[in-house]
Amino acid sequence: MNYRLDIQYDGTRYGGWQKQKDTDNTIQGKIEEVLSRMCQTPVTIQGAGRTDAGVHAAGQVANAHMETEKTSEEICEYLNRYLPEDIEIVRVKQAADRFHSRLNAREKVYQYRVAAGSHKNVFERKYQCPLHENLDVPAMREAAEFLTGTHDFKSFCSNKKMKKSSVRTIYDIEIREEGQEIRMTYTGDGFLYNMVRILTGTLIEVGRGERKPEEMMEILERCDRGAAGFTAPARGLTLLEVRY
Amino acid sequence: MNYRLDIQYDGTRYGGWQKQKDTDNTIQGKIEEVLSRMCQTPVTIQGAGRTDAGVHAAGQVANAHMETEKTSEEICEYLNRYLPEDIEIVRVKQAADRFHSRLNAREKVYQYRVAAGSHKNVFERKYQCPLHENLDVPAMREAAEFLTGTHDFKSFCSNKKMKKSSVRTIYDIEIREEGQEIRMTYTGDGFLYNMVRILTGTLIEVGRGERKPEEMMEILERCDRGAAGFTAPARGLTLLEVRY
Repeated sequence: MNYRLDIQYDGTRYGGWQKQKDTDNTIQGKIEEVLSRMCQTPVTIQGAGRTDAGVHAAGQVANAHMETEKTSEEICEYLNRYLPEDIEIVRVKQAADRFHSRLNAREKVYQYRVAAGSHKNVFERKYQCPLHENLDVPAMREAAEFLTGTHDFKSFCSNKKMKKSSVRTIYDIEIREEGQEIRMTYTGDGFLYNMVRILTGTLIEVGRGERKPEEMMEILERCDRGAAGFTAPARGLTLLEVRY
Repeated sequence: MNYRLDIQYDGTRYGGWQKQKDTDNTIQGKIEEVLSRMCQTPVTIQGAGRTDAGVHAAGQVANAHMETEKTSEEICEYLNRYLPEDIEIVRVKQAADRFHSRLNAREKVYQYRVAAGSHKNVFERKYQCPLHENLDVPAMREAAEFLTGTHDFKSFCSNKKMKKSSVRTIYDIEIREEGQEIRMTYTGDGFLYNMVRILTGTLIEVGRGERKPEEMMEILERCDRGAAGFTAPARGLTLLEVRY
C-alpha cells in the first residue's frame, strides 16, 4: 500500500530533509527509522522537497510504500509518539499506488522571512533571517516581476554540475511587510538547488539599493551563479505547501 | 543614573528571572553579568516580574542604577552584542531616580497559550502548553468571571510560607480561541507565586468538565492551595506587559 504523509518540522537541528550515508540526522532518516521499526522491515520515503539543512517545513509531503495492519490514523499516532518534538506528522492517508510526492508535485510554495526592524524577535528568531536593515520593498517587488515567468534559472542555482534542465516557471513572488518583518512567498513549478535562497539574497541586494530591479534580466541571461546575489541563510526559509 | 530596560526573552533554557546563589543560569544573572563588565563594577538590576524557570517575556521591565559614559542607545547595543540570542533588550531609557520596576508597577499582563487542536504546531511548541483536548471555552469564560475582581488568592499560590497579603485584583481574564490555540490573557495589579499557572490549570479543569464554573467561589473562600487545580506548565506562559 502507498501512503501520503503530510509533515511539519522545525529544521534548526537537522542536516536537511535528505538521508545521508554517514549520518541519520535528517528528517527523512528520522521518519524512516520509525516507519522501519513499525513495519519491522526497511521502509524508504520520498519527499516532495529536499529542504537544506536548517530549512523548515509547514507542508512537506512524502510518500511511502509499506505493508502494515495499522490504519492511517494509527500510523500517524505511532509516528508522532516516537518522532522528536520538532517533527510532526499532520496526516497520513492512503494514496494511489503510482502517487510519487516529488514527481507528481505540480506547484510548490516557499516562504522566506526577513527580520527588518532594528530588533530581533526572540520568539521568531529561528524562523527569520536577522537582517535588521531598512529595505526598499517597492524596488524588490519591481525586481520580482522580472523574475516571475518561465526562465532558465541557472544563475540562481548552486549546483554547478547540474546536467538536467534548469528551466523553471515562477508563477508568483509576493513580498509583504508584516510589522517588523518582510515575507517573501515564492510559488513555482519547482525550484533548483538553493534557488529560493539565492533569489532572496538577490532581492535583498535590490532592497539595499546595491542592484537595480532591471538587472534581473541580465542576471537571468548570463546563466552564471556569479551574476546573482548572495545565498540567504537557511533559517529564514520554510516550505509552506506542495500542490498536486 | 537610573535606567529602565525593556526586555524580551525565550525562557526555555533558563532557570527563571531571579538570580540564584549557586547558578547564574537566570535572565537577571545574564544581564547583570554584561552590565557589570560594561561598568567594570557590580551592577544589580530589579525586574518587575520574577518569572519562573521556562516562562517567557515579551515585555519584562527592569531598572538599574549605574554610572557610565555611554548613551542609552549605546548601553542597549552593548547588551545585545554580548547577550545570548534568546534574550533581547528592546530599549534602554533614563528613568527618574526613584523609579523601581517592581514596586512602581501598576498593572501586569500575562498570557497563557494552550495548544488545543489534535496536532502540535512545531514552530510554536516552546510557547504553548501541548494539551490537545477539546475544552469548553464558554464554561471557562464563566469561571473566569468569578475569579475577576479583588480576592484573597491564597488558594492560587504555591508559596505556603507566604506571610504578606495574598489579596490581589484581577481586572480582566480574556479567553480567546485562535485557530488551534486557546489564549488566556490575565490583567491584574500583581500576581502571587505560580498564580497565573494555577489559575490556568483550574480553568483547564473547568474546560474539561471536571469542575463547575461556580466552584471558583468556593476555591477562593477555602484559602487552601489544595482546593484549586493543577499548576499548568511554565512553557505556555509569557509576561506580555508591565504598566506604570
